[in-house]
Amino acid sequence: MSRHNKKNEPSRRGFIRNSLIGGFAALVGRSASAKTDAIAPLSVPSWSKELGSGTVNEPYGKPSVFEKHVVRRFLPWMFPTRQAAASFTPLQDFHGIITPNGLFFERHHAGVPKIDPAEHKLVIHGMVDKPLMFTVDDLKRFPCVNRVHFIECAGNGVLEQRSAQLNLLQFTHGLISSAEWTGVPLKLLLNEAGVRKGAKWLLAEGADAAGLARSFPLDKALDDALVVYAQNGEMLRAEQGYPMRLLLPGWEGIANVKWLRRIEVGERPWEMREETATYTDLLPSGKARQYTFIQEAKSVITTPCPEYPVLNKGQQVIRGLAWSGEGKVKRVDVSFDGGRNWQQARLTGPQLDKSLTRFEIDWFWNGQEALLQSRVVDETGYVQPSLKELRALRGVNSMYHNNSIQTWLLHPSGEVENVQIG
Amino acid sequence: MSRHNKKNEPSRRGFIRNSLIGGFAALVGRSASAKTDAIAPLSVPSWSKELGSGTVNEPYGKPSVFEKHVVRRFLPWMFPTRQAAASFTPLQDFHGIITPNGLFFERHHAGVPKIDPAEHKLVIHGMVDKPLMFTVDDLKRFPCVNRVHFIECAGNGVLEQRSAQLNLLQFTHGLISSAEWTGVPLKLLLNEAGVRKGAKWLLAEGADAAGLARSFPLDKALDDALVVYAQNGEMLRAEQGYPMRLLLPGWEGIANVKWLRRIEVGERPWEMREETATYTDLLPSGKARQYTFIQEAKSVITTPCPEYPVLNKGQQVIRGLAWSGEGKVKRVDVSFDGGRNWQQARLTGPQLDKSLTRFEIDWFWNGQEALLQSRVVDETGYVQPSLKELRALRGVNSMYHNNSIQTWLLHPSGEVENVQIG
Repeated sequence: MSRHNKKNEPSRRGFIRNSLIGGFAALVGRSASAKTDAIAPLSVPSWSKELGSGTVNEPYGKPSVFEKHVVRRFLPWMFPTRQAAASFTPLQDFHGIITPNGLFFERHHAGVPKIDPAEHKLVIHGMVDKPLMFTVDDLKRFPCVNRVHFIECAGNGVLEQRSAQLNLLQFTHGLISSAEWTGVPLKLLLNEAGVRKGAKWLLAEGADAAGLARSFPLDKALDDALVVYAQNGEMLRAEQGYPMRLLLPGWEGIANVKWLRRIEVGERPWEMREETATYTDLLPSGKARQYTFIQEAKSVITTPCPEYPVLNKGQQVIRGLAWSGEGKVKRVDVSFDGGRNWQQARLTGPQLDKSLTRFEIDWFWNGQEALLQSRVVDETGYVQPSLKELRALRGVNSMYHNNSIQTWLLHPSGEVENVQIG
Repeated sequence: MSRHNKKNEPSRRGFIRNSLIGGFAALVGRSASAKTDAIAPLSVPSWSKELGSGTVNEPYGKPSVFEKHVVRRFLPWMFPTRQAAASFTPLQDFHGIITPNGLFFERHHAGVPKIDPAEHKLVIHGMVDKPLMFTVDDLKRFPCVNRVHFIECAGNGVLEQRSAQLNLLQFTHGLISSAEWTGVPLKLLLNEAGVRKGAKWLLAEGADAAGLARSFPLDKALDDALVVYAQNGEMLRAEQGYPMRLLLPGWEGIANVKWLRRIEVGERPWEMREETATYTDLLPSGKARQYTFIQEAKSVITTPCPEYPVLNKGQQVIRGLAWSGEGKVKRVDVSFDGGRNWQQARLTGPQLDKSLTRFEIDWFWNGQEALLQSRVVDETGYVQPSLKELRALRGVNSMYHNNSIQTWLLHPSGEVENVQIG
């Protein structure tokens, strides 16, 4: 840690020098003292000697055959059926801020309906001047916006809040994904319908067999809510609500109703099943917090993690993801001693509103046990809480909205273990 | 056009009112005068009555079965073999600024090699203090950046420059795609190796059977060049250079060498096959422009296009894509009369450096023949040229770097035809 670059910039010539103990030594060609104009000892591999596969070998391409381990996974014991279940995105193999559509996490309450887009309709009705009906083609003929936003399930980390200590990043944090969304601002559709005076809440209902429905305030609808039909440039995936879904940027996943078929305008929330019996936060007083939409700022270290231990002592780049449902990520700090000391990390890519943001920091590991943590501050000044702080606030019966600081215990062996401290 | 919103903002209540002739009338529920608290006439479809498919039905997801037409395509007659060929991305069905990896255009010179990442190495050698060798894992332990950039083949529009008038957007403009890339700034790797005084050019060589190699100036390497290993959050696709490729943001596709195995540092360009015999621009004087790397600013209207004609008279949203290899898109103008009059379009999403940028503009179509064009201006002030201006500059033998204004002839039937005017 003594070698950590104080200016918080990637060190320019330090990576090999600082890594004599570890893996980076392998970078140095054996002939460092040889004539420098000679070609380094790089043999010609078999694949350079034969013609490769042809263009449009796959009209819709697939990942490399060497990346077959990078898939969504689920926990069979966690849900009663696969139709009312979640799959987790492989954050341990995720390098960006855009989740490939094939790896976007899933959470369904009655499975994925197979909806014919030519038959699907969205109705806006209730306290409006003119009830309206929209097909997918209708939506495409409205002005659109393109925005990058994450979606996180309110239950991301739900088992951790109850001390489960699952020992894989994919399962502790994998209910979050991100995409570039294309759709129509909901306020444009509502303006066409004409929202009546006194209206304050909306109900969004999906066309799945659960008829999943959630209430949300009109203010959000008139702010940044979208009815989206495309993700990452192509039409929505079936698992993500094909052919249209509600997008409430920064708000808990379930409120972003998929397979959207109906928006009703009214005066007060509807008190549906998934906002009363579930998706509420039981406090120590016995009262439950309700309509807690915002996914507050959160971060996690993804390199190293239980799936990918540290292979060598010496110079490391520690990496992770940070996000906030209230705006942009402002800064991320990293601790190597369980939260006693913090150092500011670099943000390595675009810092967009309500989007995943990547961070990294250089660290020289001396090979001893360490407690790795990351802590995000968003542009509102909100600071990600520790698990202790979160429990002080919400008690131990609250399940959803676990945005607490994650601790990875790095063993001298290089293995990484999910622990709860403090 | 008379109804075009002068403030260049999406009109708020005008879409239905302006569309009495056309498709938007269909938006209005039949019971506009009915009691507004009654539910609009939306029947319950079959898919809402049965349990859907389960979570991780596809561990690596696929597009909806209703989107099977959205695939890369190639022109069998355009290339001698499928191994030395291109496939085109379906821009007509593209809604964003991020191309899904499965739809990213391809251009290979000896097919796609199947490279075992555990065996692949990159060597940096030549005029350096220390020749170095890097595995994929080595690269991942360097500081990284995440950036969204397009890649466009120098030959995008090559047949149009020769008056072919292919009548599908996928084939006139489909040799461009875009992704979020993750990788290491090349300057970090070069700094480790120590570039010697007098070095001015680099050679990048691929591990495909073509051994495709291109020269590029050191200045670009020290500016924004990257060695990337991930695209859109997952490891590079095989067609895109798995497990590592060179990224020279904004420069012609072929210079972004895939399956990168060797970077040599030297004093002058190497004059390789693909920068002498091909990928040069023959001028009327008989001389050829060489090392013309930059993909200059270009745009195209994607809605409507030959694949998707206009269905109805009345209110339309005209959409398209704009980009520049020299920086950000500053503005896009659209003409409906073949370039006599221009109106400024809205930019509907993120405006990132050397990235695809979406534009759209409202238009009231009276049903008469029209000539639709778009014209981009980038942040350097460069204005996209007409085909006539481009030919005046480069003559008729120049094939690559066709960034001229595209003209779509909109017939009274609604059909869209690729034409060359002026």
